[in-house]
Amino acid sequence: MRILHTAMALLMCAIVFAAAPLAAGETAAGGATKSLGAKTFAQPCPVWVIGSYDAAGKPNVMTASWAAICNSRPPMVTVSLREATYTYHNIMESKAFTVNIPSEEFVKQAAYFGSVSGKDVDKFAASGLTPVKSELVNAPYVKEFPLVLECKLVKTVELGLHTMFIGEIVDVKAAESVLGANGAPDVEKLKPFIFAPGNADFYGIGASLGSGEEREKEPKK
Amino acid sequence: MRILHTAMALLMCAIVFAAAPLAAGETAAGGATKSLGAKTFAQPCPVWVIGSYDAAGKPNVMTASWAAICNSRPPMVTVSLREATYTYHNIMESKAFTVNIPSEEFVKQAAYFGSVSGKDVDKFAASGLTPVKSELVNAPYVKEFPLVLECKLVKTVELGLHTMFIGEIVDVKAAESVLGANGAPDVEKLKPFIFAPGNADFYGIGASLGSGEEREKEPKK
Repeated sequence: MRILHTAMALLMCAIVFAAAPLAAGETAAGGATKSLGAKTFAQPCPVWVIGSYDAAGKPNVMTASWAAICNSRPPMVTVSLREATYTYHNIMESKAFTVNIPSEEFVKQAAYFGSVSGKDVDKFAASGLTPVKSELVNAPYVKEFPLVLECKLVKTVELGLHTMFIGEIVDVKAAESVLGANGAPDVEKLKPFIFAPGNADFYGIGASLGSGEEREKEPKK
Repeated sequence: MRILHTAMALLMCAIVFAAAPLAAGETAAGGATKSLGAKTFAQPCPVWVIGSYDAAGKPNVMTASWAAICNSRPPMVTVSLREATYTYHNIMESKAFTVNIPSEEFVKQAAYFGSVSGKDVDKFAASGLTPVKSELVNAPYVKEFPLVLECKLVKTVELGLHTMFIGEIVDVKAAESVLGANGAPDVEKLKPFIFAPGNADFYGIGASLGSGEEREKEPKK
């Protein structure tokens, strides 16, 4: 039974990869043999700017990279924040936040938004960017940024130094200029960027690597 | 008081950006004005391959992009999976998983691992890659991949279509060839890649965008 299974698997492999031979065995990098200990060394991480209001209605933004899409239906994102941040307390109170996705042209602002606290400074005023009240949630977004998610807080999960803020995406707003022919944001037009723990600088998105054909066989999310 | 605060903020801005003028106001993309509805349009997303054993000890791998680092101390990752996946049930039973981070040379394998189910096929056998039992947790990793996180399951959070699997990183293993001078994985050597909802293909990592200097002022994570 096991032999039959393996034979079927190998046959399937032959069909799948007939037109695109694998590089397996020809690994340039070599395998993962060196232990680095228990560290947050995972890549790549997004660079998202989280918008929130404080109790007095002052808009604030902070940059976060411990963040991801975390559910498809309903659509949700998770953002992990330390209790020491101004944003943590803002979202606990307002139950809402925005995810503002900067394009490469805003790399300095994103770095700045992660370098100082909203306790000490009005980051919108300091950066010259414009806060706009969201249509559907009680949180500000960055007017100049090309992609914005309006989120209502649905759950918090305390994990240790960080707390996860899980938000339901109630609307996505985009600049027309970053949309592809399918009406969705196109990464080549949006030009978001990434953070990699271990590297000092942010990095842009590179070239298409293909594999969309294989991906289309993926079960519906 | 508010005026003083704003003045201080503007002064701070002038200090911070004196050497690096901002592009604020000169936005090529334009602001986010078009509503796209409640959709999972956030970018960029990582491409991670999740390793797990089934109850019979068969190693399996699946590709996930609803995933992120979610806590710094102790170090943790979150990966969202549908109940329909083989991996979901494997991790529920084994309480462990690995995060295997592929370099660009493995883009076809990563696409394939997301295109079929471990219920139907032995993906290791089909791809020619090699499962290795983790040292510290009951999950297999991909021998040929350059960066691996061994994780023990600490929490699951049901959100709807997906369930978050939150794992504590108990060790990171890397190929010597992807480490930078500081001993951490270097994104330029690792060459991970990203998924962007809305685009069919995977995308590589591009050039350094700088801003490390501003980022160094960031409060310790």
